[in-house]
Amino acid sequence: MNKNLPLSNIVVLDLTNVLSGPFATQILSDLGAEIIKVEKPNGDDSRKFGPFIKKRSSYFISLNRGKKSIVVDFNNEEDKKIFKKLLAISDVIIDNFKPGTLEKYGFSSSYLKKNFPLLIQTKISGFGETGPLKENPAYDMIVQAMGGIMSITGKDKNETYRVGSSIGDIVAGLYAVIGVLTQIIFRNQSKKGSRLDLSMLDCQVAILENAIARYSVEKKIPCPLGTDHPSITPFGAFKTLDGTLAIAIGNNKMFKDFCYSIKNEELHKKKKYENNAKRNKNLSDLRRDIEYQMKKKKTDYWCKVFVKNKIPHSKINNVKDVIKNKQVENRKMILDYNFNAINNLKISGNPLKFSFMNINDNVKKSPDLNENKSEILKKIK
Amino acid sequence: MNKNLPLSNIVVLDLTNVLSGPFATQILSDLGAEIIKVEKPNGDDSRKFGPFIKKRSSYFISLNRGKKSIVVDFNNEEDKKIFKKLLAISDVIIDNFKPGTLEKYGFSSSYLKKNFPLLIQTKISGFGETGPLKENPAYDMIVQAMGGIMSITGKDKNETYRVGSSIGDIVAGLYAVIGVLTQIIFRNQSKKGSRLDLSMLDCQVAILENAIARYSVEKKIPCPLGTDHPSITPFGAFKTLDGTLAIAIGNNKMFKDFCYSIKNEELHKKKKYENNAKRNKNLSDLRRDIEYQMKKKKTDYWCKVFVKNKIPHSKINNVKDVIKNKQVENRKMILDYNFNAINNLKISGNPLKFSFMNINDNVKKSPDLNENKSEILKKIK
Repeated sequence: MNKNLPLSNIVVLDLTNVLSGPFATQILSDLGAEIIKVEKPNGDDSRKFGPFIKKRSSYFISLNRGKKSIVVDFNNEEDKKIFKKLLAISDVIIDNFKPGTLEKYGFSSSYLKKNFPLLIQTKISGFGETGPLKENPAYDMIVQAMGGIMSITGKDKNETYRVGSSIGDIVAGLYAVIGVLTQIIFRNQSKKGSRLDLSMLDCQVAILENAIARYSVEKKIPCPLGTDHPSITPFGAFKTLDGTLAIAIGNNKMFKDFCYSIKNEELHKKKKYENNAKRNKNLSDLRRDIEYQMKKKKTDYWCKVFVKNKIPHSKINNVKDVIKNKQVENRKMILDYNFNAINNLKISGNPLKFSFMNINDNVKKSPDLNENKSEILKKIK
Repeated sequence: MNKNLPLSNIVVLDLTNVLSGPFATQILSDLGAEIIKVEKPNGDDSRKFGPFIKKRSSYFISLNRGKKSIVVDFNNEEDKKIFKKLLAISDVIIDNFKPGTLEKYGFSSSYLKKNFPLLIQTKISGFGETGPLKENPAYDMIVQAMGGIMSITGKDKNETYRVGSSIGDIVAGLYAVIGVLTQIIFRNQSKKGSRLDLSMLDCQVAILENAIARYSVEKKIPCPLGTDHPSITPFGAFKTLDGTLAIAIGNNKMFKDFCYSIKNEELHKKKKYENNAKRNKNLSDLRRDIEYQMKKKKTDYWCKVFVKNKIPHSKINNVKDVIKNKQVENRKMILDYNFNAINNLKISGNPLKFSFMNINDNVKKSPDLNENKSEILKKIK
């Protein structure tokens, strides 16, 4: 454990499963916290998610670096005693059970508050611990659908898609980290523990950006716009001779430079494109005019022109492109995992580049099930 | 200012513009920090983003609740003196300028470190302050395209779409909050300021979930899967007689209950659907079999059946549905903004429901440009 990291004095009792919670506790681990991953007897469900490498789940490995694993069977009294001793040495308990589960095992909020008054409790659930849906099961897909983000992602209102990564879980995980850190600050000041009731659905509503205010003002239901932005134009993916290129034009000066770059200087002089509001209104015309030019040359040609003229642009990178990307490489955002005869499994790095931390490409091991039991038991002897 | 909130002793000098930074500082405001929004003479660009209500931008209002605004012109020496005095009373300075901008105005990292050794500096940029792209301009669309999430969102590999909300900015904003809170904890321990160099592109790589590890093991480039999940099946949107319904089936027991619910009990007994791995492999057959049943009845019918049988499901809610949703309402995730003759403008609430904070539906005002100048100047007299 690096003693210089901000959370090096924090022990997290981590009962989380699959994605939202494990994503959160992996960030806490990167910040220096000790993560004791408490698993049910058959382990975190994601240990069974493929693809597998040397019989281990690459999905699990990518979310559980640097944690320690111990199995606790809440139906076994001996194990419950161990769990109570673990509570006594922990600063934070985090779970993503359905509301009521920890209570069923005898560890209600009031029990924890009474016996461990400094304990920080962070709870992630699909819908939170209040309201008509509190008992309902939820997965990423359900909160993406219910929370509105699917309704604005896709081709048009009749063809909407799931965001390709599990943004329902991931955003809840990021808010959970914000929660734990805030609770640590609160405890430092007040010498009191606290509790956070975090709902995946709430988090989805919080990231709808301008869609809610827009609907509230215009009373038009926001729809998917393909690759376009609802209020900035041109801001989307445009066809070239051999592919597609994303362009983002933030102001009139840049639009002028862009029109020059695509060899149609007349474009920015047209009344219907003279400012962002008009370009936005006449998007389909503008899209046709832009693609008429851009389809004359290949993507690589346009990239060179746009680099030269400082036009924000990017190819639509696939995952292979991302792994090879020079900027991503420079920032050490793709790391190699090398444990248990696994060589060079690629996983994502830590985007938090603080002045007090080395930009680290040392990857820590993801634990096998119950791997650290004896080490953990020694702590609570 | 609520003295009981965890950040009530923190002053944030907020130079951010449009989305990533303002989203971050609004969360810090909800946690109790005082946010001094330092705007250029013509204001935050998003003040010009529609739709407008009583001549004010609903986009700006939804991201700047509870902040105080002062104009600082860095080309004016008097204003630069004011800015230095503001630095002296601030705990945190946050910006989302292109790297080098603050330096150009005379406020380099080394200047800040020397003159304000306790200052916490958090910097958001498109690509970070190192690497071949550090000088390049970026917008949400560019990092969504470059970072890989677009390549896995959409219908198939030839039809990919932008995530409908600006996830490139929003995820960077959430990481920025994690950064500031971590830097506060670090300063409490070490009595030292610090600096965070946060890149929007890095943050996009960090949320690709299992796509990187999956590619690394299988060497197949991950593609968009419409509404389906790459490793859990069935987990997607299915057609009914009159619409679409999202279903998420996490285990075999639930799959059995689901087959019973859609009145095809034979389905779960079929060898090709006997476990998640096989269902995943035979997804297109399973999708046809499921929709054959579900197209016989309307969406509302299936919702009732699935509620009864505890099958995780949801309609694909649009933004209007989200605003009216009973669970969202119970959690106070949609708030009414009422200032400057604006009535009941809907904006999203705060998902961080801590035991030490009231679940608040008191919405604070978003400032007009330079509105709080005299109040702020009094602090630095």
